[in-house]
Amino acid sequence: MFLAKVFITYKESILDPKGEAVKKAIHQLDYQSVESVRMGKYFEIEVNESDLSQVEKIIESISDQLLANVIMESYRYEIEEA
Amino acid sequence: MFLAKVFITYKESILDPKGEAVKKAIHQLDYQSVESVRMGKYFEIEVNESDLSQVEKIIESISDQLLANVIMESYRYEIEEA
Repeated sequence: MFLAKVFITYKESILDPKGEAVKKAIHQLDYQSVESVRMGKYFEIEVNESDLSQVEKIIESISDQLLANVIMESYRYEIEEA
Repeated sequence: MFLAKVFITYKESILDPKGEAVKKAIHQLDYQSVESVRMGKYFEIEVNESDLSQVEKIIESISDQLLANVIMESYRYEIEEA
Protein backbone atom coordinates (compact mmCIF):
# COMPACT_ATOMS: atom_id res chain seq x y z
CA MET A 1 0.00 0.00 0.00
CA PHE A 2 1.21 3.46 -0.90
CA LEU A 3 0.03 6.94 0.05
CA ALA A 4 0.31 9.58 -2.66
CA LYS A 5 0.03 13.30 -1.92
CA VAL A 6 -0.84 15.39 -4.94
CA PHE A 7 -0.55 19.19 -4.95
CA ILE A 8 -2.26 21.18 -7.68
CA THR A 9 -1.70 24.90 -8.19
CA TYR A 10 -2.36 27.38 -10.94
CA LYS A 11 0.60 27.88 -13.26
CA GLU A 12 2.72 30.93 -12.44
CA SER A 13 1.37 32.82 -15.45
CA ILE A 14 -2.27 32.31 -14.43
CA LEU A 15 -4.00 34.78 -12.11
CA ASP A 16 -5.16 33.17 -8.85
CA PRO A 17 -8.20 35.19 -7.71
CA LYS A 18 -8.94 33.05 -4.65
CA GLY A 19 -5.36 33.39 -3.47
CA GLU A 20 -5.58 37.16 -3.95
CA ALA A 21 -8.78 37.28 -1.90
CA VAL A 22 -7.16 35.28 0.89
CA LYS A 23 -4.17 37.64 0.86
CA LYS A 24 -6.48 40.64 1.31
CA ALA A 25 -8.21 38.92 4.22
CA ILE A 26 -4.82 38.18 5.80
CA HIS A 27 -3.83 41.84 5.48
CA GLN A 28 -7.06 42.79 7.22
CA LEU A 29 -5.90 40.60 10.12
CA ASP A 30 -2.85 42.92 10.10
CA TYR A 31 -0.22 40.45 8.90
CA GLN A 32 1.32 42.86 6.41
CA SER A 33 4.45 40.76 5.95
CA VAL A 34 2.47 38.19 3.95
CA GLU A 35 3.51 39.02 0.40
CA SER A 36 1.74 36.44 -1.70
CA VAL A 37 -0.79 33.65 -1.38
CA ARG A 38 -1.46 30.96 -3.94
CA MET A 39 -4.31 28.59 -3.35
CA GLY A 40 -4.54 25.10 -4.71
CA LYS A 41 -5.96 21.64 -4.24
CA TYR A 42 -4.51 18.82 -2.24
CA PHE A 43 -5.27 15.10 -2.51
CA GLU A 44 -4.27 12.17 -0.32
CA ILE A 45 -4.72 8.98 -2.33
CA GLU A 46 -4.21 5.46 -1.02
CA VAL A 47 -3.22 2.97 -3.71
CA ASN A 48 -3.12 -0.74 -3.06
CA GLU A 49 -0.26 -1.78 -5.32
CA SER A 50 3.03 -3.45 -4.47
CA ASP A 51 5.13 -1.70 -7.10
CA LEU A 52 6.12 1.97 -6.72
CA SER A 53 6.54 2.56 -10.45
CA GLN A 54 3.00 1.30 -11.03
CA VAL A 55 1.72 3.77 -8.41
CA GLU A 56 3.59 6.62 -10.13
CA LYS A 57 1.96 5.69 -13.44
CA ILE A 58 -1.50 5.65 -11.87
CA ILE A 59 -1.02 8.96 -10.05
CA GLU A 60 0.27 10.72 -13.18
CA SER A 61 -2.58 9.36 -15.27
CA ILE A 62 -5.21 10.38 -12.70
CA SER A 63 -3.68 13.83 -12.29
CA ASP A 64 -3.54 14.47 -16.02
CA GLN A 65 -7.00 13.16 -16.78
CA LEU A 66 -8.99 14.08 -13.72
CA LEU A 67 -7.43 16.08 -10.90
CA ALA A 68 -5.67 18.90 -12.72
CA ASN A 69 -6.73 21.11 -15.59
CA VAL A 70 -3.33 20.89 -17.25
CA ILE A 71 -3.91 23.96 -19.40
CA MET A 72 -4.08 26.20 -16.34
CA GLU A 73 -2.74 24.10 -13.50
CA SER A 74 0.41 22.19 -12.72
CA TYR A 75 0.76 19.36 -10.26
CA ARG A 76 3.44 17.63 -8.29
CA TYR A 77 3.25 14.61 -6.07
CA GLU A 78 5.02 12.67 -3.34
CA ILE A 79 4.57 8.95 -2.72
CA GLU A 80 5.34 7.15 0.51
CA GLU A 81 4.83 3.60 1.69
CA ALA A 82 1.83 3.34 3.98
CA MET B 1 11.74 35.63 3.13
CA PHE B 2 10.06 32.34 3.90
CA LEU B 3 7.70 30.13 1.92
CA ALA B 4 5.06 28.32 3.96
CA LYS B 5 3.05 25.42 2.55
CA VAL B 6 -0.20 24.79 4.39
CA PHE B 7 -2.25 21.60 3.90
CA ILE B 8 -5.83 21.49 5.10
CA THR B 9 -7.90 18.31 5.19
CA TYR B 10 -11.10 17.19 6.83
CA LYS B 11 -10.56 15.46 10.15
CA GLU B 12 -10.59 11.65 9.94
CA SER B 13 -14.01 11.47 11.57
CA ILE B 14 -15.60 13.83 9.04
CA LEU B 15 -17.06 12.50 5.80
CA ASP B 16 -15.33 13.90 2.72
CA PRO B 17 -17.96 13.88 -0.06
CA LYS B 18 -15.72 15.50 -2.69
CA GLY B 19 -13.01 12.93 -2.05
CA GLU B 20 -15.60 10.15 -2.40
CA ALA B 21 -16.78 11.60 -5.70
CA VAL B 22 -13.23 11.75 -7.01
CA LYS B 23 -12.67 8.13 -5.96
CA LYS B 24 -15.72 7.05 -7.94
CA ALA B 25 -14.47 8.92 -11.01
CA ILE B 26 -11.07 7.25 -10.63
CA HIS B 27 -12.72 3.83 -10.49
CA GLN B 28 -14.58 4.68 -13.70
CA LEU B 29 -11.15 5.24 -15.27
CA ASP B 30 -10.51 1.63 -14.20
CA TYR B 31 -7.92 2.23 -11.48
CA GLN B 32 -9.50 -0.15 -9.01
CA SER B 33 -6.42 -0.26 -6.77
CA VAL B 34 -7.17 3.27 -5.56
CA GLU B 35 -8.66 2.62 -2.14
CA SER B 36 -9.32 6.05 -0.73
CA VAL B 37 -9.19 9.68 -1.74
CA ARG B 38 -9.27 12.64 0.60
CA MET B 39 -9.47 16.09 -0.86
CA GLY B 40 -8.22 19.22 0.80
CA LYS B 41 -6.90 22.71 0.30
CA TYR B 42 -3.33 23.76 -0.26
CA PHE B 43 -1.79 27.20 0.23
CA GLU B 44 1.65 28.56 -0.67
CA ILE B 45 2.26 31.69 1.38
CA GLU B 46 5.30 33.96 1.10
CA VAL B 47 6.12 35.80 4.29
CA ASN B 48 8.67 38.58 4.42
CA GLU B 49 10.08 38.09 7.92
CA SER B 50 13.61 37.35 9.03
CA ASP B 51 12.71 35.16 12.00
CA LEU B 52 11.38 31.62 11.51
CA SER B 53 9.52 31.54 14.84
CA GLN B 54 7.68 34.71 13.86
CA VAL B 55 6.64 33.07 10.58
CA GLU B 56 5.37 30.01 12.47
CA LYS B 57 3.29 32.27 14.70
CA ILE B 58 1.78 34.06 11.71
CA ILE B 59 1.02 30.84 9.81
CA GLU B 60 -0.65 29.22 12.82
CA SER B 61 -2.71 32.31 13.50
CA ILE B 62 -3.81 32.62 9.86
CA SER B 63 -4.64 28.92 9.64
CA ASP B 64 -6.70 28.96 12.83
CA GLN B 65 -8.57 32.15 12.05
CA LEU B 66 -8.96 32.09 8.31
CA LEU B 67 -7.76 29.11 6.27
CA ALA B 68 -9.13 26.14 8.23
CA ASN B 69 -12.48 25.51 9.81
CA VAL B 70 -10.92 23.99 12.91
CA ILE B 71 -14.13 22.26 13.97
CA MET B 72 -14.09 20.05 10.85
CA GLU B 73 -10.64 20.46 9.42
CA SER B 74 -7.08 19.98 10.55
CA TYR B 75 -4.02 21.60 9.09
CA ARG B 76 -0.32 21.07 8.95
CA TYR B 77 2.40 23.19 7.44
CA GLU B 78 6.00 23.24 6.26
CA ILE B 79 8.19 26.33 6.14
CA GLU B 80 11.28 26.76 4.03
CA GLU B 81 13.59 29.70 3.37
CA ALA B 82 12.89 31.26 -0.01
